[in-house]
Amino acid sequence: MAKNAISPTRDQDYPQWYQQVVKAADLAENSPVRGCMVIKPWGYGIWENMQRVLDRRFKDTGHENAYFPVFIPKSFLEKEAEHVEGFAKECAVVTHHRLEPAPDGGLVPAGELEEALIVRPTSETIIGDAFSRWVQSYRDLPLKINQWANVVRWELRTRLFLRTAEFLWQEGHTAHATQEEALEETRLMLDVYAEFAEKVMAMPVIKGEKTIGERFPGADVTYSIEAMMQDRKALQAGTSHFLGQNFSRAQEIKFQDKEGGESFAWTTSWGVSTRLVGALIMTHSDDDGLVLPPRLAPKHIVILPIVREDDTSGKVIEYCQNLLKELKELTYHGYPLEAFIDDRDLRGGEKKWHHVKRGVPIRIEVGARDIEKDSVFVGRRDQPKSYGAPRGEFVASVIETLDQMQQGMFDKALALRQENTRTIKSWDKFQKFFTAKNPDKPEIHGGFAECYFVDCPEVDEKLKPLKVTPRCIPLGVEHEEGVCIFTGQKTKVKGIFGKAY
Amino acid sequence: MAKNAISPTRDQDYPQWYQQVVKAADLAENSPVRGCMVIKPWGYGIWENMQRVLDRRFKDTGHENAYFPVFIPKSFLEKEAEHVEGFAKECAVVTHHRLEPAPDGGLVPAGELEEALIVRPTSETIIGDAFSRWVQSYRDLPLKINQWANVVRWELRTRLFLRTAEFLWQEGHTAHATQEEALEETRLMLDVYAEFAEKVMAMPVIKGEKTIGERFPGADVTYSIEAMMQDRKALQAGTSHFLGQNFSRAQEIKFQDKEGGESFAWTTSWGVSTRLVGALIMTHSDDDGLVLPPRLAPKHIVILPIVREDDTSGKVIEYCQNLLKELKELTYHGYPLEAFIDDRDLRGGEKKWHHVKRGVPIRIEVGARDIEKDSVFVGRRDQPKSYGAPRGEFVASVIETLDQMQQGMFDKALALRQENTRTIKSWDKFQKFFTAKNPDKPEIHGGFAECYFVDCPEVDEKLKPLKVTPRCIPLGVEHEEGVCIFTGQKTKVKGIFGKAY
Repeated sequence: MAKNAISPTRDQDYPQWYQQVVKAADLAENSPVRGCMVIKPWGYGIWENMQRVLDRRFKDTGHENAYFPVFIPKSFLEKEAEHVEGFAKECAVVTHHRLEPAPDGGLVPAGELEEALIVRPTSETIIGDAFSRWVQSYRDLPLKINQWANVVRWELRTRLFLRTAEFLWQEGHTAHATQEEALEETRLMLDVYAEFAEKVMAMPVIKGEKTIGERFPGADVTYSIEAMMQDRKALQAGTSHFLGQNFSRAQEIKFQDKEGGESFAWTTSWGVSTRLVGALIMTHSDDDGLVLPPRLAPKHIVILPIVREDDTSGKVIEYCQNLLKELKELTYHGYPLEAFIDDRDLRGGEKKWHHVKRGVPIRIEVGARDIEKDSVFVGRRDQPKSYGAPRGEFVASVIETLDQMQQGMFDKALALRQENTRTIKSWDKFQKFFTAKNPDKPEIHGGFAECYFVDCPEVDEKLKPLKVTPRCIPLGVEHEEGVCIFTGQKTKVKGIFGKAY
Repeated sequence: MAKNAISPTRDQDYPQWYQQVVKAADLAENSPVRGCMVIKPWGYGIWENMQRVLDRRFKDTGHENAYFPVFIPKSFLEKEAEHVEGFAKECAVVTHHRLEPAPDGGLVPAGELEEALIVRPTSETIIGDAFSRWVQSYRDLPLKINQWANVVRWELRTRLFLRTAEFLWQEGHTAHATQEEALEETRLMLDVYAEFAEKVMAMPVIKGEKTIGERFPGADVTYSIEAMMQDRKALQAGTSHFLGQNFSRAQEIKFQDKEGGESFAWTTSWGVSTRLVGALIMTHSDDDGLVLPPRLAPKHIVILPIVREDDTSGKVIEYCQNLLKELKELTYHGYPLEAFIDDRDLRGGEKKWHHVKRGVPIRIEVGARDIEKDSVFVGRRDQPKSYGAPRGEFVASVIETLDQMQQGMFDKALALRQENTRTIKSWDKFQKFFTAKNPDKPEIHGGFAECYFVDCPEVDEKLKPLKVTPRCIPLGVEHEEGVCIFTGQKTKVKGIFGKAY
């Protein structure tokens, strides 16, 4: 076996492997500002592709984009009791609006604000305030808004993409005349996220409801999509919240209904963030670096001309340029197929590995001998061996090839999840599942446990020492009555449990 | 003459007219956070269209998007002397990372930071820091990055879009091996902005160099595009800065050159912001509300079905839906033509004016009698009278019609600027030009004055009481020798002067 491009490998040290993949693929890096990352072009390109697809879906489901202030007055955060509890402990507080020269040189904060401002950790309160002005009559409903923005939560332990003090996200905020309609919206957006995760990210997810202890601060119901990473830990990849009338009461989002009475609106919020880039990396990448589902790859195909030093004819380059032109005329899922030539003056091996580590789905090598045969040498990121193919055939089938790769990645990820999900029927086996360390018996060292349980604080307490959390109560599954493995109570509720990012 | 939709009119009270247009078109509103605006969906839709076109142009000219922290450590701002001078006086300072319950209820800032953070007013310093890591060898150059982001400058007097504490923008940042290349980049991006302003915004601009006193803090050269608004004031619509080696020295952006020596990189930065939306409004709108150049309109065509109460056949709606389908198959400058049906239950007049005020370029009214003749009733936002047209003819020529409207808007704005630009040869006439108040003699109550001058502090001082500033020294114009109207010195430099937003 050849040496791998990433060291350590996944098996050796998964967290360190993750950092090395991010670095080798040039996706992001830590910045001098504690907890804030710099998203580099290749990483940002993935986020842009995510945005492009999601934004289209949001618009197709009747949402409009808008933009709200980055600052939230302290008093706004204080309005909703659970909400402030959830976000006040880790937020960036703006207290001054000027810097002044200090007596000893340097600058000191000056111009103290009458009311401190919080850099938004989420925008329910500031958007709710706008909604309270915009919503007057039932005719103004539903109001369906989305915002693409940066948010800040002062995290102590950060990890690139997965948990950072500042991150990029979208947050949908809607207001409705009835509870039913708001609940429908909450579930619709969960479906949009799940479909995006599975079809576009090639990442299988479980749609479910969060337990009471894991709800968004201020929500009546929180739904999430949960994915299993390659280390068998869970990652919450998107959430959709039914906020009931909690925020509309706190912020007076009232409307005159058809009968002339006054009602509080029912609101929802939902979001996904740059965390998805982390989920993408951890779902698909291997010991040679990043593996990208074609639908999110900033570039689909790199063409590598192999020109011998004594070849001054320019024929190889010309052939590559023609191939590039042909490929650029194709579209892939409604967007242009992105191909490019890498003719940098680097050794062939170095150049090839550069693109392997960055996860470019298809590499094409073209040398003088290939031209004679009108064929190309194709390297697929999901296969160890390259192969030769007639140029015309390759071009004619390249879209299908990309679709196959996309499907293959999904299937592989789904198989991993299925292999590592167990129905567990006793507290004893549950503990063993999450604590045993036997590499030869994968069924007993962690993954997703599916168990009957009762959603209560007692269960949460019992789980704490194991560092396991209820991930969700899957939707759309009817259960017989069973016994809660934690409390012994009778229940019809089954949950998915796991260690989580 | 019919009553206008906007009161006051431009002639009555221009600043108030502006606010009313923004309000009537539902573009934006003030938020409870001092100086920060809420950009509403219709206003944000215009910004999205601007982003779409600009982003394409940036990528076509070899730039990649990335994202850098919203916070800048205080010490970073302090590194470049002129830069800190320019931005320290009005910035949002983060000093704490937590809120804690206060003894008297409510919350107080807690967890004081060791070093205060500034919410970015611009990102030269934090991006320069990343560049100092990314640039090692001449092979790493040029480095051409763009960021779409929010920025904050603590403005005291704000006005929606034109001057707000928080605004959205893009900031390009590039590093080059040579001065020539960096200067070329600076001018190229100025050209990109000018072309965007003229072709896409239909707003004529003057490309020029800023005087020393008006340069970006820390720049060696600042170029700008300057536009004339309908009140004849100037608006700086975009800037492109040649930063020399100032930031690369302050931040050690060094590289090993081809000869093995070490050099500082030459850097540039350039940006446009949501201020462009304000410029757009003030360039084209009229006393009936917003007028949008078709290339930036979120919707190009609204179809208004006129259904009589006793008509239950559904034929009008069906006809409209077929028309919509036909229109949606068209593309306009590479993007889908955006048409929609407004079938809300509103009076016809109310509905029509709703779209007039929002600047939808074309309104189509369809009633039962129009269907019989297979014709539609067309209202162009740039013409007072609607007209009938055979449906097929209308559809076949609609793209051309939009292009004509776009060109017409540009021509009109250019004519206004030309009518209100004067070559002025004496200080006396200059003063009169900017102070006289005679509506019958437009040549003597302001606009752009083109004058010989010497770029020196004396001139800036002399201009202050008039509230006039040198807007720019236009590029690409060769001048004979003349006399500075402010100092009497000989000079070959001609500048454009005006009152500015």
